[in-house]
Amino acid sequence: MVLFTAGSYDVIVIGAGHAGCEAALASARIGCKTLIATLNMDNIAMMPCNPAVGGPAKGHLVREIDALGGEMGINTDKTCIQMRMLNTGKGPAVHALRAQADKKWYQAMMKETLENQTNLTVKQLLVEKVLTDDGKVYGIETETGEFYEAQCVILATGTYLRGKIILGEAAYAGGPNGQRAAEKLTDSLRELGISLMRFKTGTPARVDRKSLDFSQMSLQPGDEETHNFSFMSDVITREQIPCWLTYTCEKTHEIIRSNLHRAPLYMGIIEGTGPRYCPSIEDKVVRFADKTAHQVFIEPEGLHTNEMYVQGMSTSLPVDVQQAFLRTIAGMENVVIMRPGYAIEYDCLDPTELKPSLECKKITGLFSAGQSNGTSGYEEAAAQGLIAGINAALLVMRRPPFILSRSEAYIGVLIDDLVTKGTNEPYRIMTSRAEYRLILRQDNADLRLTGKGRELGLVSDARYERFISKKEAIETVLQQLWQGVITPTVENQEKIKAMGSTEIRTGTSLFDLLRRTEIRYDDLRRQFVLPPLSPIVQEQVEIAVKYEGYIKKQFEQVERLAKLEAKTLPAPIDYNLISGLSLEARQKLNKIRPLSVGQASRISGVSPADISILLVYLEQSRRKGAGE
Amino acid sequence: MVLFTAGSYDVIVIGAGHAGCEAALASARIGCKTLIATLNMDNIAMMPCNPAVGGPAKGHLVREIDALGGEMGINTDKTCIQMRMLNTGKGPAVHALRAQADKKWYQAMMKETLENQTNLTVKQLLVEKVLTDDGKVYGIETETGEFYEAQCVILATGTYLRGKIILGEAAYAGGPNGQRAAEKLTDSLRELGISLMRFKTGTPARVDRKSLDFSQMSLQPGDEETHNFSFMSDVITREQIPCWLTYTCEKTHEIIRSNLHRAPLYMGIIEGTGPRYCPSIEDKVVRFADKTAHQVFIEPEGLHTNEMYVQGMSTSLPVDVQQAFLRTIAGMENVVIMRPGYAIEYDCLDPTELKPSLECKKITGLFSAGQSNGTSGYEEAAAQGLIAGINAALLVMRRPPFILSRSEAYIGVLIDDLVTKGTNEPYRIMTSRAEYRLILRQDNADLRLTGKGRELGLVSDARYERFISKKEAIETVLQQLWQGVITPTVENQEKIKAMGSTEIRTGTSLFDLLRRTEIRYDDLRRQFVLPPLSPIVQEQVEIAVKYEGYIKKQFEQVERLAKLEAKTLPAPIDYNLISGLSLEARQKLNKIRPLSVGQASRISGVSPADISILLVYLEQSRRKGAGE
Repeated sequence: MVLFTAGSYDVIVIGAGHAGCEAALASARIGCKTLIATLNMDNIAMMPCNPAVGGPAKGHLVREIDALGGEMGINTDKTCIQMRMLNTGKGPAVHALRAQADKKWYQAMMKETLENQTNLTVKQLLVEKVLTDDGKVYGIETETGEFYEAQCVILATGTYLRGKIILGEAAYAGGPNGQRAAEKLTDSLRELGISLMRFKTGTPARVDRKSLDFSQMSLQPGDEETHNFSFMSDVITREQIPCWLTYTCEKTHEIIRSNLHRAPLYMGIIEGTGPRYCPSIEDKVVRFADKTAHQVFIEPEGLHTNEMYVQGMSTSLPVDVQQAFLRTIAGMENVVIMRPGYAIEYDCLDPTELKPSLECKKITGLFSAGQSNGTSGYEEAAAQGLIAGINAALLVMRRPPFILSRSEAYIGVLIDDLVTKGTNEPYRIMTSRAEYRLILRQDNADLRLTGKGRELGLVSDARYERFISKKEAIETVLQQLWQGVITPTVENQEKIKAMGSTEIRTGTSLFDLLRRTEIRYDDLRRQFVLPPLSPIVQEQVEIAVKYEGYIKKQFEQVERLAKLEAKTLPAPIDYNLISGLSLEARQKLNKIRPLSVGQASRISGVSPADISILLVYLEQSRRKGAGE
Repeated sequence: MVLFTAGSYDVIVIGAGHAGCEAALASARIGCKTLIATLNMDNIAMMPCNPAVGGPAKGHLVREIDALGGEMGINTDKTCIQMRMLNTGKGPAVHALRAQADKKWYQAMMKETLENQTNLTVKQLLVEKVLTDDGKVYGIETETGEFYEAQCVILATGTYLRGKIILGEAAYAGGPNGQRAAEKLTDSLRELGISLMRFKTGTPARVDRKSLDFSQMSLQPGDEETHNFSFMSDVITREQIPCWLTYTCEKTHEIIRSNLHRAPLYMGIIEGTGPRYCPSIEDKVVRFADKTAHQVFIEPEGLHTNEMYVQGMSTSLPVDVQQAFLRTIAGMENVVIMRPGYAIEYDCLDPTELKPSLECKKITGLFSAGQSNGTSGYEEAAAQGLIAGINAALLVMRRPPFILSRSEAYIGVLIDDLVTKGTNEPYRIMTSRAEYRLILRQDNADLRLTGKGRELGLVSDARYERFISKKEAIETVLQQLWQGVITPTVENQEKIKAMGSTEIRTGTSLFDLLRRTEIRYDDLRRQFVLPPLSPIVQEQVEIAVKYEGYIKKQFEQVERLAKLEAKTLPAPIDYNLISGLSLEARQKLNKIRPLSVGQASRISGVSPADISILLVYLEQSRRKGAGE
């Protein structure tokens, strides 16, 4: 085939799913000439699994993406058909927004955004090769014989690399949702010396709304109060469509158990490793054999379709079994399956071969983001896409990489987990993975990250101004609260009692009064002279006051550990030569090649003793270096 | 694989393109329990080629589909982003409505209609086998091992049967737009003894609106007056997006000519026969070597995308050549291709193996409609789908088939051409194919067909009432025009002169006055006592009056030929035994097995002499039969 030089770009993104879209937008917005290549223009920003964005930790990621100038939050707000704040009964650290999106509309709006982005070209191309020279990317080659030059290439291939669909006794090569798989790109990556893993994931059936009896399910409406993912959204009302909750029963599990001999998962047909935290129903029935019921959420796939997603019932059992077990669920006795559930196997990279910038250690200019790094979830993909897009652009511009620490963002936790610890199953973000939950809240993602986004060139003037005025409003009120000292006069004591609280003994600041659990800002404002606040500013003020002690402690912790993070490890250390290190530590450190002692300390198999030896070694090296 | 009996239906439609959608809706609306099976629920009613519906003859089909209770007209009206009445400078027989549709919205609306249709189930299934017993359909079998029982099966497989995508030097198995092909269904059809042909079609590149310079093209706006396809539509205003017209030049053709050695069409890569009336640009450049320019229409693919369709530039040349020749076109000097053009090859049935009901002669209960019958075009597909759906339902109900004659509808012309003459290239409807153009107008499709649709159970009360009141309004006015006789009084002569016409000599009916070219109904109404009419009634009245003579003549012709159509040919005739028939006539008649002498007379190779012999033979048989 004649190779045709079809164009030259700074950055090429392969794949236009949730990772690819953020990567391409970030790169283009920073100012790099960017190409996004998709197998099929009609599948840009496709949601091949559930029709939802957000939830615990995932919602945090979306807010962080938004604060950094990403698109997922804005696009979700535009196309959302239900919004709920989860965990409102618990502390603010775990509050989490979750949206149902209209799948088709989500795609259409994201496609429109990509197509109208300056510096960005959208093309339908099947990429077959990543081209490198002397360990450095210089372009890609497509199925139809085009060569596109690029300084950086971002893999965002989702589940398309040697994708294989498995449904009962049937299996065939393909991407999700009836798409073609990318068969040859895998070979090209292998030739570059990249290690690949084989993962699998799955999706439940989509069923016909008309065939469901909702009177036997419980209604899950959206919140009456309007929430948005994006700090920039001004959506104040939206049409909301409810979801429904029902349960499996013993009969459901019985049918599954008696058909396990036909389950690809147990027949040896599936080689790939599935996600522990999003198991198929057959897996749940086997692993949690004593549970007599599992939750099943019925979620609409859009405003203009009767297709309903059956959350919790992911499966690759044959269609007859799917139908049989679904029909045992309350309200689904006559269910009609429109699309059956299936499993998909795919190749993905070992993320420990990536730097925290998401660049491959072996190939300069080659980045990877999303499911191709072994994660699951739209939000995890988008977060990595954003970071890969930023770092590809920074590399082109010869600027240092942008790395978020574990104390700055869930994005930092996600990527540090991946590149430091690796993963042997599709990785999912969870609040429990973050050690600094109280400072990594979804409500303060803008306060944490907008400034950084601004420095990167991703935050527009409008966003920045909105952010600054919010920040100033918070600081002004906090100042007022500190300075407003209340003396124990009879009048003041009456006011405090009126708020349902106990008398003060000495002069007390409004700040200290607001600390009291029973007192809200609005109460305080009614009794003393304080300005009215917007709900979002008020929320920040109350959290800052009421959780001050805890938050302070977490920051102290972060500071202590920051010293280890600051101790960087020079690239060419041969850990085999450091005497005293355990064998496992040597192997792991040589494999992962952590950038700092902090990162080294999080590698499983590297003990505190190993870290001490490493610190001694670094100190000796420093002295030697200084002595020479 | 264990075969699972997944359901039982009266009618199963394989494929949910334009043929499949109409077939399924018709069957369900008539009252049959119907299943529509699609490879991918996301591709229901996909427009893989141009984003337009209608045009000469095609627009006629859409109006006829609508009059019979079909969906294409309604769906186009809902999702249209531009509407133009073509050929308004010519007579009413060739006036033709053409719409630009928002592709994604067209799909969404049709999918919503299917999903909400009573008696209809929509499922994502890849059908691998049509099951028959003793020459009679009893069901289908899917890739994932389900058996669905059915009395009738309608093939509406479009270009999916052993679909092969060809783009320059690259070729791979696939349906249009990156879809999977249906590989095994072909084998199943072959095993049933069905003859298959190999056709090909193609599509041009989709290009980025932002890369075009419209100042070098001419604007093609929609009509200011609002038109609708459906007789039921009440859309009175719509947002309209313009198209653009530009031209190829000598340089364009030169590039194509100098790259013909790389054209799959001339390299022997393409085996299938392409559509003569919709040739690729490489084909046009070769066949019309003396033409120095070809028209190129730039059409938007939707409201929310920058993708533009490049009408007239269908090609399977390599991408570099596509880009090079597109860049020679005025206004496209910097064009960016978003999706390249490609050709697709596919298997289709020989339509001469079908009855005029679109049932296979060899297999009872197996119908075929659309591209699988060797046609091209969304409208041709939809028209056949409707007829196949109707006839499958009628067969289930043991009612006689519904067959439209060539004098009743373009649908009749289309199907008679297919089943009588066959086709050796993708067949396209054209006004020149209809011998009774003046009576088969788009404007009177409702008058011709609504009554028939009503008898079939496809015309709702609302539609029927609207139709009846229109018909009565027309008849009332025509009556008034006949009865209103004007005498040559001075006053009347003045009135006639005021209308710009010449004096009358004797008492003259208003009907006769309206016959005059220069007089319009509105003029007449202003001068004499006549009711105001809605534009659509007025149009019918004027056509009925002004073209009365021609229309009458065509009806006389129809009547004369109707005698031949009425002479049915009993099924088991062995034409080899009829002495005097030419060898060719014997072969063709034995192959086609026409249902009437009329149909026999249209078979190419059957001469008037053969017809005479046939008539004698029939008369003899009749007498013999009567004598027994």
